[in-house]
Amino acid sequence: MNNYLQDEIDEKLLTLYKNGPSSLIEIYKYILSAKGKRIRPMLTILTSKAIYGNYNKAFIPALCIEILHNFTLVHDDIMDNDSLRHGKKTVHNKWDNAYAILSGDMLLAISLQKLIETNPSNRVLNSFMNGLLAVCEGQALDKEFETSKLVTKKEYLYMIEKKTAHLIGMSLEIGGLAYNCSKKTAKNLFNFGVLIGKAFQIQDDLLEIMSNPNNMKKSLHSDIILGKKTYPVILCREIDDNKINQILNQKDENIKNIIKNLREFIINNNVDRIIKDYIENIYSEAYNIFNKIKFKNSNILIEFTNKIKNRTM
Amino acid sequence: MNNYLQDEIDEKLLTLYKNGPSSLIEIYKYILSAKGKRIRPMLTILTSKAIYGNYNKAFIPALCIEILHNFTLVHDDIMDNDSLRHGKKTVHNKWDNAYAILSGDMLLAISLQKLIETNPSNRVLNSFMNGLLAVCEGQALDKEFETSKLVTKKEYLYMIEKKTAHLIGMSLEIGGLAYNCSKKTAKNLFNFGVLIGKAFQIQDDLLEIMSNPNNMKKSLHSDIILGKKTYPVILCREIDDNKINQILNQKDENIKNIIKNLREFIINNNVDRIIKDYIENIYSEAYNIFNKIKFKNSNILIEFTNKIKNRTM
Repeated sequence: MNNYLQDEIDEKLLTLYKNGPSSLIEIYKYILSAKGKRIRPMLTILTSKAIYGNYNKAFIPALCIEILHNFTLVHDDIMDNDSLRHGKKTVHNKWDNAYAILSGDMLLAISLQKLIETNPSNRVLNSFMNGLLAVCEGQALDKEFETSKLVTKKEYLYMIEKKTAHLIGMSLEIGGLAYNCSKKTAKNLFNFGVLIGKAFQIQDDLLEIMSNPNNMKKSLHSDIILGKKTYPVILCREIDDNKINQILNQKDENIKNIIKNLREFIINNNVDRIIKDYIENIYSEAYNIFNKIKFKNSNILIEFTNKIKNRTM
Repeated sequence: MNNYLQDEIDEKLLTLYKNGPSSLIEIYKYILSAKGKRIRPMLTILTSKAIYGNYNKAFIPALCIEILHNFTLVHDDIMDNDSLRHGKKTVHNKWDNAYAILSGDMLLAISLQKLIETNPSNRVLNSFMNGLLAVCEGQALDKEFETSKLVTKKEYLYMIEKKTAHLIGMSLEIGGLAYNCSKKTAKNLFNFGVLIGKAFQIQDDLLEIMSNPNNMKKSLHSDIILGKKTYPVILCREIDDNKINQILNQKDENIKNIIKNLREFIINNNVDRIIKDYIENIYSEAYNIFNKIKFKNSNILIEFTNKIKNRTM
């Protein structure tokens, strides 16, 4: 079922922009043919299917969310100077910054145009635009944090809620709103999704340090190089700030050795265990909310969120 | 009346984004406090006023169009590496590329969010999203042209229609659509605006070469440096391609001298006269369409478009 859906998403995405300047069509195909995990549109579609047994009304909005997400990736990759994404060169790396800025803008424009064509309710539109603004604000906070000395866990969690979790929450919420669900259901879907998204990002931060770069298919360790305040680094600093400064500030050191030293610190201080427990707690909280929602068939959604939870890359 | 309106626009624009990351609020204020000409929101508002004697319903959409326009400026300035805009440092020049990309995205997000809050009709939304996509496509064509050897007048006119004129047409159209005007009126407003916008851009191209940079309050001549195919250059090439190559390709020459030589060629070959006549023709065509629209008071709109036409900077 899920593989079939993912193929349907991949296929349809490529058909949504066919008439335009040849440079933009080429870049659009390049971006949307990358084999992403399609987590967001899957969540939208599976939400509709789990509650209403149907996803027709949610299908195009789901694709619009995926295109919106890709807009954020293309621009973030320029800002973070990342060279790889899904095992492929990033747009600014393969073309240049100007085309990357422009093709990001174009993705957003297409996403919005296709959404409007579905004649969406004002509730769907509000949710979508709030999501867009949240992502921008989250990215701004992330950038502000790069140059701030101390970032607390609370500040970090607020940032990832805006930058990552909000859009995941929105993906689920729109799965309900496309079928004009009740206010209460919309709220529960959103809050459940925000928690899943929060866990997802914290897991991502941990995987970035602990994984083999070959598994992640993107340029790893760039967060460390940019001085980003990720969750594991914040926890490590709480344990021994001096030691972490010592590890991270060895500018002449090979990045591989920096990561190796950081990994050792994490394992020796049980930080990975603490984070995994925290993720479990977030999931418990999420499932408490999930259980308040009335489903026709909740399994298809639970299976998928479990897959996200248990991923190793 | 117009000065009062412009003040009302300037003032209200600054109130539309107040809660968010401090970096974004600072950049938002910086961008929106620049004294732009506010041509687009003025056209929207004056259209409503001229047809319906009222502009309440069009006011916020007009501001959203101005914010959308500023989004395109911030991103275009990065792509074109322009250092000044309205006599102030451009965002990427004052901050950096990352903040400029991000603040452009944020402007678009705010524009959309505020528009949705007015509970706009699907007609308004469609017009808005088509305008957004057109601007992106126009900018892509403009970029493609930078590296193409020959650009015809027809190709150039298609490009500026997308990049500049479409949004001017949309500004007028939304002035009508906000009051649910007839299909025919919407079409006439759009087509009138597209012609005004076309004339506006051609005039801009000519002013960029013939004006004193101190008057234009932006970094002039950057189009020449980037090898952009502007209307005067295309006409000059039709007259003597070799001579124009000779003038423009003197890379070791001071840009001031290149412009001086280009100006001389334009004057000696009557190119400025030809362009001014062409602009007159476009305005005649525009006013033919204008006269088909039923107004309560068309003067306020005509006065304003005449001001655009007769500007010298």
